[in-house]
Amino acid sequence: MAYTVAEKILKEHLVEGELKRGTPIAIRIDQTLTQDATGTMAHLEFESIGIPRVKTELSVSYVDHNLLQTDFRNADDHRFLQSIAARFGIWFSRPGNGICHQVHLERFACPGKTLLGSDSHTPTAGGCGMIAIGAGGLDVAMAMAGFPFHLIMPKIIGIRLTGTLPPWVSARDVALEMLRRLSVKGGLGKILEYFGPGVTSLSVPDRATIANLGTEMGATTSVFPSDEVTKAWLVAQGREKDFKEILPDDGARYDEVIEIDLSTLEPLIACPSSPDNVVPVSQVAGRPVSQVIIGSCANSSLRDLLLAAKVLEGRSIHPEVSFEINPGSRQVLENLDDLGYLKPLIHAGARIHQSGCLGCIGMGQAPATGTISLRTFTRNFPGRSGTKNDQVYLCSPEVAVAAAITGKITDPRQLGSPPTIEIPSSFIVNDNMIIPPPEDGSGVEIIRGPNIKPLPQFDPLPEDLKGVVLLKLGDNITTDHIMPAGSKILPLRSNIPAISEYVFSAIDPQFSSRALETKEKGEGVFIVGGENYGQGSSREHAALAPRYLGVRAKLAKSFARIHKANLINFGILPVIFADPADYDRIQAGDRLVFRQVRKALETGRDTIIIEIEGGGEILGRLDLTDRDRRILLAGSLLNLARQA
Amino acid sequence: MAYTVAEKILKEHLVEGELKRGTPIAIRIDQTLTQDATGTMAHLEFESIGIPRVKTELSVSYVDHNLLQTDFRNADDHRFLQSIAARFGIWFSRPGNGICHQVHLERFACPGKTLLGSDSHTPTAGGCGMIAIGAGGLDVAMAMAGFPFHLIMPKIIGIRLTGTLPPWVSARDVALEMLRRLSVKGGLGKILEYFGPGVTSLSVPDRATIANLGTEMGATTSVFPSDEVTKAWLVAQGREKDFKEILPDDGARYDEVIEIDLSTLEPLIACPSSPDNVVPVSQVAGRPVSQVIIGSCANSSLRDLLLAAKVLEGRSIHPEVSFEINPGSRQVLENLDDLGYLKPLIHAGARIHQSGCLGCIGMGQAPATGTISLRTFTRNFPGRSGTKNDQVYLCSPEVAVAAAITGKITDPRQLGSPPTIEIPSSFIVNDNMIIPPPEDGSGVEIIRGPNIKPLPQFDPLPEDLKGVVLLKLGDNITTDHIMPAGSKILPLRSNIPAISEYVFSAIDPQFSSRALETKEKGEGVFIVGGENYGQGSSREHAALAPRYLGVRAKLAKSFARIHKANLINFGILPVIFADPADYDRIQAGDRLVFRQVRKALETGRDTIIIEIEGGGEILGRLDLTDRDRRILLAGSLLNLARQA
Repeated sequence: MAYTVAEKILKEHLVEGELKRGTPIAIRIDQTLTQDATGTMAHLEFESIGIPRVKTELSVSYVDHNLLQTDFRNADDHRFLQSIAARFGIWFSRPGNGICHQVHLERFACPGKTLLGSDSHTPTAGGCGMIAIGAGGLDVAMAMAGFPFHLIMPKIIGIRLTGTLPPWVSARDVALEMLRRLSVKGGLGKILEYFGPGVTSLSVPDRATIANLGTEMGATTSVFPSDEVTKAWLVAQGREKDFKEILPDDGARYDEVIEIDLSTLEPLIACPSSPDNVVPVSQVAGRPVSQVIIGSCANSSLRDLLLAAKVLEGRSIHPEVSFEINPGSRQVLENLDDLGYLKPLIHAGARIHQSGCLGCIGMGQAPATGTISLRTFTRNFPGRSGTKNDQVYLCSPEVAVAAAITGKITDPRQLGSPPTIEIPSSFIVNDNMIIPPPEDGSGVEIIRGPNIKPLPQFDPLPEDLKGVVLLKLGDNITTDHIMPAGSKILPLRSNIPAISEYVFSAIDPQFSSRALETKEKGEGVFIVGGENYGQGSSREHAALAPRYLGVRAKLAKSFARIHKANLINFGILPVIFADPADYDRIQAGDRLVFRQVRKALETGRDTIIIEIEGGGEILGRLDLTDRDRRILLAGSLLNLARQA
Repeated sequence: MAYTVAEKILKEHLVEGELKRGTPIAIRIDQTLTQDATGTMAHLEFESIGIPRVKTELSVSYVDHNLLQTDFRNADDHRFLQSIAARFGIWFSRPGNGICHQVHLERFACPGKTLLGSDSHTPTAGGCGMIAIGAGGLDVAMAMAGFPFHLIMPKIIGIRLTGTLPPWVSARDVALEMLRRLSVKGGLGKILEYFGPGVTSLSVPDRATIANLGTEMGATTSVFPSDEVTKAWLVAQGREKDFKEILPDDGARYDEVIEIDLSTLEPLIACPSSPDNVVPVSQVAGRPVSQVIIGSCANSSLRDLLLAAKVLEGRSIHPEVSFEINPGSRQVLENLDDLGYLKPLIHAGARIHQSGCLGCIGMGQAPATGTISLRTFTRNFPGRSGTKNDQVYLCSPEVAVAAAITGKITDPRQLGSPPTIEIPSSFIVNDNMIIPPPEDGSGVEIIRGPNIKPLPQFDPLPEDLKGVVLLKLGDNITTDHIMPAGSKILPLRSNIPAISEYVFSAIDPQFSSRALETKEKGEGVFIVGGENYGQGSSREHAALAPRYLGVRAKLAKSFARIHKANLINFGILPVIFADPADYDRIQAGDRLVFRQVRKALETGRDTIIIEIEGGGEILGRLDLTDRDRRILLAGSLLNLARQA
């Protein structure tokens, strides 16, 4: 048999099922990562499972999302994470050490291994030949406890790269081209595997940029082969021993092949307010810009910052533009400085921030009202920047730095000849901001600040599910709509009662109180959505907090993968309209009854009748594995794990 | 006649009165500075005066306080400030260029000139031989409009420095020693003038550190001579032409002399929660520390960061300590990097932030609950860090970096031999983040975001002042108590109705609504305080917002200078208990009548009878100049200026 790279790695980790597309499988997880925004809850969940030490080969807890420390809660979370990591055998990457995906790529990513991360951009490590998947915190906690990860075997799409990138065009433009072709839901249920002669012209951080942005297409993950380029990266990191060649077999078959000739690409840009709203830069050139940021797990590697620095040598930032640099990691910053290229950034007038996510998750850097912000970030969902009616464009560092100089959206090819970027064959490696766990952590005291609250308890599914549709929503609802982030809300991630007050707050500020009232009356709360419901982040708070408010079922035309898994994990029934036209038959305020819902799950039925009070019946589809059903019946995955 | 340095500069700028201590004088202002937290309002006030261009030699608008941009308001303020600066002939220092006082010292401070700044630490420039005074935004707006600045001629205290500082002891310890001796109110009504042979051993940034912290003693300002050291600083800045020697005349007489032998000082530290709670470091050594920050207008010069970097060479930060660097300016950062000393900070594990005030004004960097934070900041008032019951200690960079290494409060003399610090004789100077105003700004459009609200209108003082005491407070109430800052409140500085909801919010969350109710009933709101009422920041919002809520008089045992001036500027009557024992006769809830208050002001009476309903009468003292009386009668300085 001839296998693709993805198949090779999955096969080696398979513990249940077979590689038949669309069927449930379970895989062994070698490594996990968490970040602070999802990690406080994931670690509370791990603790509640009752295992003394993680059972993975490696688990790393990163702090990167919330570094602003606008009050005690943030610093308390950092101390909680540091202490619980030491207790349970987890490596701890300190605040300021960098973005989880960049640091993981540098220090821990291993070709051929599996990585599960409680962050939707975990597939970044696919740039280093791993199967790296984003999941809810509870799934990651289970993996830390040694349980396999369950998923539906995705289709494997081969993206055949040929040619090499023209001047001023970079990895980001490959991802933007993919988004242009596939849209934000084109990757659903798919692994995107890159192959072909064009792959060798891309460095590991380039590949990581492309793998990272597969998340914005809804892909389960993206993966590159592990080849000489991968080896060079690991050698430069002093980790040659971690190298393992993994190439697709001759004759490996993809479920579909997409061809991209790199030499035909031009600078692209995603316009407001969706990552797939992609056009050539030339089409929007000339629009005035007030802010430019280079950063985020998509584009803040040494290569990206070197590019910006070299372009800026001898130039100044435009007086109307705030130009900001969020280095991907301390390693990036240190090596940039060592090469002498931090200086041109400082000199040109860049605002240099500590390494971390910052504005990408709405923690600061909100743009001014009515102005354009260009960012190398992952997402430009409406309002995610912290500014209402924002105008956020996503682009490569090349396009970003061009606008920083001219003050308007500019095709970087107008800047003349491109700089030569040479990445050192050996990096300054310095792990003093990564704290290894002690051999025996059993004596470590876990430090809990007053904002760190225990997990709520969730009751099992009732026989009949009765309640009210409190919200009816459209297509492509994101987890930012369901459970917003930003500087006010992110500090509440370890306090479910407090954060639940913000569920759907941008859409309906009264949702939280209306839901609690409904719950107190003993009625279920239902949400109706359209296509691709729950796209975006992996945050399980988008399931956990609604469940706390009494949400028991969501009806949609389709669900994004991670959000659906999170719904199931916290006992919220995800139901798909058997006939999408039925979407129009339900309105907000309608009372619904899902009769004999327990029986439907227990007997493996894949449809359910939903009675609309005074409006007849519709058919709902239950696209659920046996395991999903057991979780839903138990009321949550934690309940099920405790029963076992 | 023999004059002191302060007398020489004041004499040259005197436009009203004479240098007789305790009598009203007015001085010509050569330069002004504003920062963003006070500047939005100051510029709205300047605009309302109706003058087309500033009349000073130099006015600079800095952005340093709020750089977090947690929502649109912050970036909108920056754009407003940039546009209004261009309109009215003001230089604009961009966000990320640094702290106003550090940048002013570098690029604009001129020996012999006067500077008025809407920031309490404006006296920092006294390190460069200026008379630099902090004032409310309206006073600065008036100075920008060419009006003189009115004050009571302070006493001039000579601080005679002898000897040189021992190893590991620095300028900060001189200031801490002064605070230990004088307390937070020991400088009230005084100019602190440093002289003697010890002065020549202190660089201009050292002197600036000492002058800066005179503010914490309540001093009107602090000043150093302008000598060869000053000249060297200006030469290094490429500004030799700005040098002018100003030394005290032989036989100059100080109203009082304090002697400090520098060689006898040891490392000192201010314990929670007052800058004058000073003890030797050795007395509190060993207490565990979770956070160390080097930054703020007091201690973030090149010298301070070089010290930290040299101590950290070959060392790592303690794993339990978050070590943070807030460079004072882009120039500091750029020169540090150029000398190769940013690298040891990055390598040791420091979190390097953009240049600005950040945590010093509670914009981020809040420490974890129940842990100790060591900072080189100016103030440690309770809760100012953003964390309730915080334990903030203030100290030198030497003491700070020692704790960052050991994880506990440590006498730096235990670190072995001190590094040699050599400041370059010529700095990299780069003004591309300072935007000069256009020759003619009349065509510049002022950009106002939706949070930038017009100034409220204030009615003249009524014949009788009747109302209710809504709060009775103790001694040393700070402007942080009256009008808190921090990440939630600072973005509201350009919106008086919105920010007024937070007046006294930490003491009485209902104060704002109770005051508005009282105002709507047509009653005055009164506040009673103890000694040194209104110490701390220069923020006029601590007068403007209470006035908006209906506060018409404050009764206290004594007032801090800038706050008293702000009260008068916004038509709030500051009354001093003629007999401090009467403080005990008034309680919260009492109704008071100040009968014939207009007549008292018009006829120059310096006492007023206050009737306590059902509790007899007490005598209030009116310590007011003629000009103060005219302002109070008009209802605000702006009303008076418009009448003129």
